[in-house]
Amino acid sequence: MTRRYSVILGNLGNTKDRFCGGYKDNPDTMTMLRHAAAIPDVSGIELVGTWDVTPDNAGEMKKILADLGKQCASIIPDVFTQAKYGTGAYSNRDDAVRREAIDYTRAMCDTAQELGCGLLCIWPGQDGFDYLMCTDYQDARNRFRDAIAEVAEAYPGLRFALEYKPKEPRCFSLCARMADTLLVCQETGCDNVGVCIDTGHSYVAGESVGEAIVLASRLGGGYDDTAGRLFHMHFNDNHGLWDDDMIVGTVHSTTYLETLYWLDRCGYGGWISMDQYPYREDAADAIGESIQWLRGYSALLDQHRARWDDVMKTGDAVAASRLLRQALLPG
Amino acid sequence: MTRRYSVILGNLGNTKDRFCGGYKDNPDTMTMLRHAAAIPDVSGIELVGTWDVTPDNAGEMKKILADLGKQCASIIPDVFTQAKYGTGAYSNRDDAVRREAIDYTRAMCDTAQELGCGLLCIWPGQDGFDYLMCTDYQDARNRFRDAIAEVAEAYPGLRFALEYKPKEPRCFSLCARMADTLLVCQETGCDNVGVCIDTGHSYVAGESVGEAIVLASRLGGGYDDTAGRLFHMHFNDNHGLWDDDMIVGTVHSTTYLETLYWLDRCGYGGWISMDQYPYREDAADAIGESIQWLRGYSALLDQHRARWDDVMKTGDAVAASRLLRQALLPG
Amino acid sequence: MTRRYSVILGNLGNTKDRFCGGYKDNPDTMTMLRHAAAIPDVSGIELVGTWDVTPDNAGEMKKILADLGKQCASIIPDVFTQAKYGTGAYSNRDDAVRREAIDYTRAMCDTAQELGCGLLCIWPGQDGFDYLMCTDYQDARNRFRDAIAEVAEAYPGLRFALEYKPKEPRCFSLCARMADTLLVCQETGCDNVGVCIDTGHSYVAGESVGEAIVLASRLGGGYDDTAGRLFHMHFNDNHGLWDDDMIVGTVHSTTYLETLYWLDRCGYGGWISMDQYPYREDAADAIGESIQWLRGYSALLDQHRARWDDVMKTGDAVAASRLLRQALLPG
Amino acid sequence: MTRRYSVILGNLGNTKDRFCGGYKDNPDTMTMLRHAAAIPDVSGIELVGTWDVTPDNAGEMKKILADLGKQCASIIPDVFTQAKYGTGAYSNRDDAVRREAIDYTRAMCDTAQELGCGLLCIWPGQDGFDYLMCTDYQDARNRFRDAIAEVAEAYPGLRFALEYKPKEPRCFSLCARMADTLLVCQETGCDNVGVCIDTGHSYVAGESVGEAIVLASRLGGGYDDTAGRLFHMHFNDNHGLWDDDMIVGTVHSTTYLETLYWLDRCGYGGWISMDQYPYREDAADAIGESIQWLRGYSALLDQHRARWDDVMKTGDAVAASRLLRQALLPG
Repeated sequence: MTRRYSVILGNLGNTKDRFCGGYKDNPDTMTMLRHAAAIPDVSGIELVGTWDVTPDNAGEMKKILADLGKQCASIIPDVFTQAKYGTGAYSNRDDAVRREAIDYTRAMCDTAQELGCGLLCIWPGQDGFDYLMCTDYQDARNRFRDAIAEVAEAYPGLRFALEYKPKEPRCFSLCARMADTLLVCQETGCDNVGVCIDTGHSYVAGESVGEAIVLASRLGGGYDDTAGRLFHMHFNDNHGLWDDDMIVGTVHSTTYLETLYWLDRCGYGGWISMDQYPYREDAADAIGESIQWLRGYSALLDQHRARWDDVMKTGDAVAASRLLRQALLPG
Repeated sequence: MTRRYSVILGNLGNTKDRFCGGYKDNPDTMTMLRHAAAIPDVSGIELVGTWDVTPDNAGEMKKILADLGKQCASIIPDVFTQAKYGTGAYSNRDDAVRREAIDYTRAMCDTAQELGCGLLCIWPGQDGFDYLMCTDYQDARNRFRDAIAEVAEAYPGLRFALEYKPKEPRCFSLCARMADTLLVCQETGCDNVGVCIDTGHSYVAGESVGEAIVLASRLGGGYDDTAGRLFHMHFNDNHGLWDDDMIVGTVHSTTYLETLYWLDRCGYGGWISMDQYPYREDAADAIGESIQWLRGYSALLDQHRARWDDVMKTGDAVAASRLLRQALLPG
Repeated sequence: MTRRYSVILGNLGNTKDRFCGGYKDNPDTMTMLRHAAAIPDVSGIELVGTWDVTPDNAGEMKKILADLGKQCASIIPDVFTQAKYGTGAYSNRDDAVRREAIDYTRAMCDTAQELGCGLLCIWPGQDGFDYLMCTDYQDARNRFRDAIAEVAEAYPGLRFALEYKPKEPRCFSLCARMADTLLVCQETGCDNVGVCIDTGHSYVAGESVGEAIVLASRLGGGYDDTAGRLFHMHFNDNHGLWDDDMIVGTVHSTTYLETLYWLDRCGYGGWISMDQYPYREDAADAIGESIQWLRGYSALLDQHRARWDDVMKTGDAVAASRLLRQALLPG
Repeated sequence: MTRRYSVILGNLGNTKDRFCGGYKDNPDTMTMLRHAAAIPDVSGIELVGTWDVTPDNAGEMKKILADLGKQCASIIPDVFTQAKYGTGAYSNRDDAVRREAIDYTRAMCDTAQELGCGLLCIWPGQDGFDYLMCTDYQDARNRFRDAIAEVAEAYPGLRFALEYKPKEPRCFSLCARMADTLLVCQETGCDNVGVCIDTGHSYVAGESVGEAIVLASRLGGGYDDTAGRLFHMHFNDNHGLWDDDMIVGTVHSTTYLETLYWLDRCGYGGWISMDQYPYREDAADAIGESIQWLRGYSALLDQHRARWDDVMKTGDAVAASRLLRQALLPG
């Protein structure tokens, strides 16, 4: 299978945690773009709204990307780093704040169109809750659904991928896992609202990523070049309990094979994008590693495609183990 | 609010774990029934098919329950303790095994009708998978959906509550959380297919139970006396990571208040049923404790109903904390 | 029991997460001090080195605290927010960085003495590792042990409480849980090296806090006014999987009763300090709530002390549930 | 490195879960022995006391093992499947029950000696607690320590490996992780009391297995052919949150390389034993897979030993990823 690899530009920058404001120097945008573009096998770049691209600099960014020979894979509206959205962007109880989030997202849609990019990856990280007994879940879900629907209806030529995550920065997210996010997609009534899987979020959620892909493929709607409502993919690895945003393949193995397998089976033709927080590593090197892991796993799938197809039907764990082992290990 | 409390009969028996075949004596069914009936405030009893009730003894069981003055709250078909269903009941790859599960469930539907019970609580514990790379998730979900639909269509006068659980006995369950189970309900196309929340399963799933109730209430379908597709409730507590099946209230507090609150808000009129594994405790005492905890929490809700309603709108964690603290603690 | 409550000054400030640089205004230190001092029942304040107190302003801070009528409960050296310590402070592979951490900690010891404070609370958040296959655990533990021992030997009149946490900001911490931190205490050979329990860290670690207190009490060494090697306590609550740093009592209940009970049983006379991240709440109100929860739980313990003592011997879960329920709920 | 592989005999039998009494036929002991002996590369067999071996049949078992050409790798006293030990074996509040556990373990020591086996692997699964507020942790730990010490002192020629596990069947185990188990070893004052790591237990505990090995190696005591107090190893894999007891390598990869690496570095010469619950798989095939995965990982270590040694010193995640990837994947 041919895959299109992309990276999130901000991952090339100085990623912070809640204690330390960054372990490295702060590169400027042009430096990050050059580093991203130099990563082997990258053909697309995801831009975070406001950080990387604004209505004002969209034309300039378009030219830069063209010069670098890269596509804009998606625009990610920044509804998660600004204090004003701290108690919710699309679901905020304050109508003025919520309106600002909607209007800002519409501006990002215009920017996407200017850049020739058909996808907004929306991570509604602040839309959720922390404490019990103080959230009207009905109202919160209504506000969220209506905001997403308003934007999606206004831009029928764009696709909107909702990126789910069980928690962080809120203790509970409204879009926490694949299935609840699909329910949101349905509630909007818009076929151009779908889902982005971040593999690390899915591990923390206790999902099998392969099964999550299948759930998205079953919903209906969507487009021929997607796995149903699966519009986008972010890749990283973690130790299972938290969104450590690590290099692909440094903890888990089988799940990547299964993920790529089901992307193929479900006809996914979207981006294979890297989303890491290489806090203490050289960013381009760490992100580049992930792409090479995925290329290696893809090669394993291609080498033994018929055998994977066969074992997938059987429920035979020993046969799956043997095939996996013989593919990965000597002797 | 008036609540109807029930218990699962088997919880009065000799609960096992995977190492020890039971820490207590094995009481006979009649002894368990008497113990269950003697628990204060119990008005209903859930019966596990085959263990507790069969087509052959249904008439006798009906008379016993009537004599005890208790209702049959639900029938739980036993599709989880028998080796033949080890690789799936409703989704089994073997057509003969799957047919047996369906036909057995239909027999349990007949039994429910004979007992005047309108609810089957289906826990498809074996319908899932353990290892990656050896399950065709599309086929598994198709088989599962079609089996449930077949039974639900054949018994339009009965309701079917699918009880979800992230894992155990399988490493991954097909019905793992509220939202994915609602997707199954939809796929069946049957309004009489809904969901059972087990509070402990929901904690392990990383859900807020209150939000899960709201999700079920939003789907549509369902009945006037239910919270949308929420047809049944099982209560217990645990330490958060595993289905410890403990006495309600011995670990968590706020979540029970919130759960009862949203049941009321969403108009749930179904059973409040206890589902515990009192491995080493006197079963009736341990189950009775849970009911008294829930009665106490219900009283707290009733005492301060308007204040809970107010704080629930606000997102104000400090106000929620203060109200909760003043309700629970002296001084 | 009389308890001494304190707060960490920085918790009154503008707490950040890894996405947003703070949801509130940045108060200056004097404002934070006034807010902290006004929280009911607070008698001590913990100061973070560099942020709140430096060798240069120690005299001034001493006067301010005296004017506010508060004690300095501890000094927390800042070895976790600075990029230079990103790959370890006391265990850093780079001798110069490690030396800087040690010398800085010694300066903080001088500052503590100037402030009349006998306790350094050391949270070695950066001393750990993220990825497998690239850490020599022997060397890391040797470097860490020797650094702590060097400081502790140089300041025999001060106590050093190592605060453990399973992960964050590193994927794995060298001081991850009570027992491994006790092994470090032993390895230093210094009786003035002990442990700080943060209740939320302990929940994430899968510990029972009461049992962790008992482990510390059993090690030997320590002081008459401590529970063995337990030198300090930080309180907060969370949803179980992550260090959410929430208001005490808003998720869990029983664990706080048990924690306070075992502190008393083991003769702990140290501070009961609040450590929260009230990202979106009024900080003083949120921290004040925690203290009032703990005061309420303490009152429950005192009211029924003999009954708690009795049930604690029995292993009788039903009796413990009943006593807890009758203490907390009406009816 | 030469490694000695062994298996636990009971894993060849009909493993149960708490719902189903086994998914397969119940083979007799002789059948299990033959199946175990036929697994490629197995040279030792672990026997569970009472299930597999008793004082009465020890002589017969010795002959059978000799005929099969296999060693008895360890005796595992059965202090976890019998109802009488349900509230603790070595720590039971009932002196008579506790005495029975001790005396039974002594009998198993005699049996081990008769079989020429130098190792007891003690998994104190019932020694723990479920509910808060009803356990005197000091007493429990005293009883546990004294019981283990009594046996270890009586049999100075045998080694006792305490197998830790965070939970199951109890909600909290007294021996939960490496470090707290090392504290127990210390408290006994016996150099012949050490630890058994079960890799799956270690994952659930949130440990890095490599670091756990290093902790055991640092304690002192122990023997030349062990990594300090690390006396035994059990291998399996899981999905991270629960003791799924799966085939090695079917979820994780890097951790096995790191585990084998640190076993070598710390001089471990003990058994590499498989401990799985192949509920639905052919047992011998599933266990045999694990051994072949470990042999494959060992070969990778041997092929690149100097490179692993180099990267292990660096903290360089990218270099570790690259080496791992080049070892495992094509291209």
